[in-house]
Amino acid sequence: MDKIKVGILGATGMVGQRFVQLLADHPWFEIAALTGSERSVGMTYGEACRWVISGDMPASVKEVVVQESKPDFASRLVFSAMPATVAGPIEEEFAAAGYAVSSNSRNHRRDPDVPLLVPEVNPDHLALIETQRRKRGCKGFIVTNPNCCAAPLVLALKPLWDRFGITTLSVVTMQALSGAGYPGVPSLDILDNVIPYIGGEEGKVETEPLKILGQLEGEAIKEAEMTISAQCHRVATREGHLEAVSLKLGREASCEEVVEALRDFLGPLHDMGLPSAPERPIVVREENDRPQPRLDRDEGGGMSVVVGRVRECPVLDYKFVLLGHNTIRGAAGAAVLNAELLKVKGYLEELE
Amino acid sequence: MDKIKVGILGATGMVGQRFVQLLADHPWFEIAALTGSERSVGMTYGEACRWVISGDMPASVKEVVVQESKPDFASRLVFSAMPATVAGPIEEEFAAAGYAVSSNSRNHRRDPDVPLLVPEVNPDHLALIETQRRKRGCKGFIVTNPNCCAAPLVLALKPLWDRFGITTLSVVTMQALSGAGYPGVPSLDILDNVIPYIGGEEGKVETEPLKILGQLEGEAIKEAEMTISAQCHRVATREGHLEAVSLKLGREASCEEVVEALRDFLGPLHDMGLPSAPERPIVVREENDRPQPRLDRDEGGGMSVVVGRVRECPVLDYKFVLLGHNTIRGAAGAAVLNAELLKVKGYLEELE
Amino acid sequence: MDKIKVGILGATGMVGQRFVQLLADHPWFEIAALTGSERSVGMTYGEACRWVISGDMPASVKEVVVQESKPDFASRLVFSAMPATVAGPIEEEFAAAGYAVSSNSRNHRRDPDVPLLVPEVNPDHLALIETQRRKRGCKGFIVTNPNCCAAPLVLALKPLWDRFGITTLSVVTMQALSGAGYPGVPSLDILDNVIPYIGGEEGKVETEPLKILGQLEGEAIKEAEMTISAQCHRVATREGHLEAVSLKLGREASCEEVVEALRDFLGPLHDMGLPSAPERPIVVREENDRPQPRLDRDEGGGMSVVVGRVRECPVLDYKFVLLGHNTIRGAAGAAVLNAELLKVKGYLEELE
Amino acid sequence: MDKIKVGILGATGMVGQRFVQLLADHPWFEIAALTGSERSVGMTYGEACRWVISGDMPASVKEVVVQESKPDFASRLVFSAMPATVAGPIEEEFAAAGYAVSSNSRNHRRDPDVPLLVPEVNPDHLALIETQRRKRGCKGFIVTNPNCCAAPLVLALKPLWDRFGITTLSVVTMQALSGAGYPGVPSLDILDNVIPYIGGEEGKVETEPLKILGQLEGEAIKEAEMTISAQCHRVATREGHLEAVSLKLGREASCEEVVEALRDFLGPLHDMGLPSAPERPIVVREENDRPQPRLDRDEGGGMSVVVGRVRECPVLDYKFVLLGHNTIRGAAGAAVLNAELLKVKGYLEELE
Repeated sequence: MDKIKVGILGATGMVGQRFVQLLADHPWFEIAALTGSERSVGMTYGEACRWVISGDMPASVKEVVVQESKPDFASRLVFSAMPATVAGPIEEEFAAAGYAVSSNSRNHRRDPDVPLLVPEVNPDHLALIETQRRKRGCKGFIVTNPNCCAAPLVLALKPLWDRFGITTLSVVTMQALSGAGYPGVPSLDILDNVIPYIGGEEGKVETEPLKILGQLEGEAIKEAEMTISAQCHRVATREGHLEAVSLKLGREASCEEVVEALRDFLGPLHDMGLPSAPERPIVVREENDRPQPRLDRDEGGGMSVVVGRVRECPVLDYKFVLLGHNTIRGAAGAAVLNAELLKVKGYLEELE
Repeated sequence: MDKIKVGILGATGMVGQRFVQLLADHPWFEIAALTGSERSVGMTYGEACRWVISGDMPASVKEVVVQESKPDFASRLVFSAMPATVAGPIEEEFAAAGYAVSSNSRNHRRDPDVPLLVPEVNPDHLALIETQRRKRGCKGFIVTNPNCCAAPLVLALKPLWDRFGITTLSVVTMQALSGAGYPGVPSLDILDNVIPYIGGEEGKVETEPLKILGQLEGEAIKEAEMTISAQCHRVATREGHLEAVSLKLGREASCEEVVEALRDFLGPLHDMGLPSAPERPIVVREENDRPQPRLDRDEGGGMSVVVGRVRECPVLDYKFVLLGHNTIRGAAGAAVLNAELLKVKGYLEELE
Repeated sequence: MDKIKVGILGATGMVGQRFVQLLADHPWFEIAALTGSERSVGMTYGEACRWVISGDMPASVKEVVVQESKPDFASRLVFSAMPATVAGPIEEEFAAAGYAVSSNSRNHRRDPDVPLLVPEVNPDHLALIETQRRKRGCKGFIVTNPNCCAAPLVLALKPLWDRFGITTLSVVTMQALSGAGYPGVPSLDILDNVIPYIGGEEGKVETEPLKILGQLEGEAIKEAEMTISAQCHRVATREGHLEAVSLKLGREASCEEVVEALRDFLGPLHDMGLPSAPERPIVVREENDRPQPRLDRDEGGGMSVVVGRVRECPVLDYKFVLLGHNTIRGAAGAAVLNAELLKVKGYLEELE
Repeated sequence: MDKIKVGILGATGMVGQRFVQLLADHPWFEIAALTGSERSVGMTYGEACRWVISGDMPASVKEVVVQESKPDFASRLVFSAMPATVAGPIEEEFAAAGYAVSSNSRNHRRDPDVPLLVPEVNPDHLALIETQRRKRGCKGFIVTNPNCCAAPLVLALKPLWDRFGITTLSVVTMQALSGAGYPGVPSLDILDNVIPYIGGEEGKVETEPLKILGQLEGEAIKEAEMTISAQCHRVATREGHLEAVSLKLGREASCEEVVEALRDFLGPLHDMGLPSAPERPIVVREENDRPQPRLDRDEGGGMSVVVGRVRECPVLDYKFVLLGHNTIRGAAGAAVLNAELLKVKGYLEELE
């Protein structure tokens, strides 16, 4: 099989680097173009990019010349890691020009005709693509993945939502430095400290799961009826967002049933052979001091959410702590998995 | 005025060091004895103690010889920082021998006849001392202060409890390393990490506020009716426990009323002249990224609780974040303030 | 005594904040003007400055309106914390307008007619001021303090230089984050890391001590004859530069003599009553694991250099480790002490 | 080929864990026995060992029952990660019983008849094994690897020693937390701090390279004539010892020659096919801010030493900074490579 040529928009930032890392040896996709801001255009990727994530920059991209973010590549699929300040219209421009855009940016997440996709959770929302094409009058389209906290959260919620329903949910996050990009958080702000605020984050965590768990009704998503409260904090970890969750179920269930629902979840991707899909989307740990960011963030190649300490909550029904790799499951890995689903569902073929 | 001679039981540990620091130049109290474990007895404090808190060991204690924890000092008041494994019977022995014991250890906190005291919150609980004396048949007595998370929490709750009532409360903590004592948390466990578990902590946070906010009825405390859920985490900060709180009030109140109740709180110590009482027990910050452990933990000499981000909660009624200095307001400073209240209320005179 | 009104140029940065902190309650000086870049001019200091050093912003400066760095203040003394990109000509402009400029910037440190001053080391270099005034034709003048590593180093070297001479010296630094200013070092670069490079630093450490220890000969400084090699590293500490030093003396001396020379050093400021002069410029620790940045950086109010582990070196003659507070002794505190010396030597009177 | 069964003595500690990790899928060796202290004997490895290094505990060892450190395994080769307090006589006992002992402990490093081996540096020292066998009257024998700082240092020195000679060397280390084992360094000691002392370390760094670079003369090693001075520091990194080196060569050489000697070094293992031998024992980086522990410690699977910033030194001849992975190249990986050399040189066959 010939690999599908792909472009990475905004390839020099931290999420862009994750895209490069995840796509450099991808069995289905092949990096054909890297774009960057004016500052980087014309430089090689090796020159333009200060590589800050673990592992070395793949040798294959070092000499690639960074291009402008214009829809003139020989590829039909692009991944977007562009900053929200510019991503909106550029992604639309690519879609209009016939590209499939798998975006990690927040700009179009709430557009009614754009899927906010977690393949294990709401693959049926891909049906919005047809609506989008028709409404916008183009063959290309945009698909988005959720915020770095919302992505692992909604994945852990899925089996509970399906089996028991969830009426209210409270989540307190302890988020890694990489979530702020690079240079991001100054060291003087975070050494020996916690910052109890991340701009715009709580709103995303409180709303995105409602669309993702929503019902496709005709050409629109009817949002899930659930009340979420989020409190977000920055802590001194490199990668891995930890989230302390408590929730009220829609019906009574024992703690064993809750654990079982989480542990048994395989999801709709099971046996579909998507390269980035983890064997177990949800990994439940039994130890009372897990998950921990350093020890558990790479579970399932960073694509599994790790859940621990499931127990009764005196205020709501149950509480637990979960961990998701914020730049993989919460960003680039999510967008790559979305693209893999697009491929097996045939959405990329139509573009060729 | 002659200073009151005091002893510090378990003086070489981290909380013991805070006692030494807070009492070395105290206007009312004077360190007369330092006790330690078998390993330390007979050594000078300078030899026996690996000083780990900020600032130097006070010169006045360096040559003090560490004694056994036996009630044979020329003092009538002792502070206890002994580990819970030994504190129980030794504190009783001191009380039996006629000493006032202001303890930071958890052993007697839940005894029905022992005040679990926060001077700004439940000074009337001191009446339990008479019950205690009568039941135990001795002039001496034990007074305790709450757990390092419960202490600042209950202080922040007090004005809300009084004005509006509180029915349910959810708290997620991000606790400092010093809370685990010394050597405490291995660096390899916490660098680039968060540990979502602290043994025994959640139970204390869920129960101690109920006794503290309880009503004195006859000779016993009737616990407050409130449901608390706690999730506790260890993070890489030196001092200062951060707590993300959400709660449901007993009656309707606007956000302004809640902020006002917190901000206006002066408490019953106001103008009593207790040396360790902060001018404002509760400090409310307006910035959206405060309190932060490094910036705010020393507010009021480490005795104020700092509250920020008071806002509506979609799940309960209101949410906010608070910070308390865990080894001052949450430990040694709390016990010193308790002793100051004992003095002005005349409980120490009777012992002389 | 009326306090002398002073201005702080570049007051919003990290070193500027230290100036504000050190001068807010200074017995001789009084802050009369704060300047900043175009971005800050017209805002109050409280609005313009993101306060990042320990302790709160002094209340007295919060409402001060930030001015342009133009020599039109009602003060005769200014402290400069301006970035090197702009400090050069602005400092000259202030000197030309009749101000005494005590600068922490590097721009004029190597000017032959500008004293590079450490009051305990080379107070006689103040004589250059007359040369400077004559050559530049103005009453105002510039005095500088050394780089944050060179300042504590040369202070520790002074008694050895005087008693034994020093021919060669090798120094490896482990420097704090605050040395890079704010926002400075990204947290992702330094958490779980050391960076073995600080731009321009090694050159300063290798040359500045030669001027400071140099002889005033006529109107010029004859540099000291000593060879210095420096290797500079950034580590994850907030404040306090640690330096591992080894050196060859000009004549034979026992280890006891070396320790004695360090320990006995009082320096020429002793009993002069300068407010910022530490009681002991050099503090020698006997423990084998000191100095440590966190424990020792505040020695002498951050103005003492702390030396430990003095021992024989198999390669050169002796080796030891020293610690200096980089934003106090190595920056703002150094410039304030310089100004205090200017005052007692009468250099400020002439300007009034 | 049947794999050689091996035992790991002291398998539950931090270095023991590295042995387990490196040997779990080793192409030549197969873990047949794990030993531990009294506390662990009889427990499964999964129960006895608190796994603290990156990656999960290999599934294959979880159920292995920890044994006493007695020479009664069905294996002919053991790796020793025992603490120095007990390693000495136990390793002798294993050698006496006919085992080949590849030890990371320091106890026998300086025995005249025990090779202190770095395969790329002094493979000829294996000849000492015959001496050792004859003197001690047994078929088994002990081979040791150097201290975690000395190992990467001597590897980087080898090509310079061979081409130019080295007369004096000064090294200042910045060592990772894992070098102190687990629990090791308390977090309160190292957060926002550097500790300028590591017990016993400087002596090892100053002497071990002399034996390793020494000449085999008859049945003994004549130590290299070189003077080394070491200053050792603990910093807040997880893995990777950084060392700032300056040295004087035995003859004149240009900087280019020095870089070339380092860069071109392939060493005697090249093309021998040892599984743990890195393709390049020395990797030279050109960037002025490399090597960095976090970015470079895993080079060559943690078996390469990474050198950067080679430049002239005003005091000695040249200076540079090097990085070695302390628990791989500096401990377990070194011992495994030693065993691989033993195998290809036939020393293990004789034992079967």
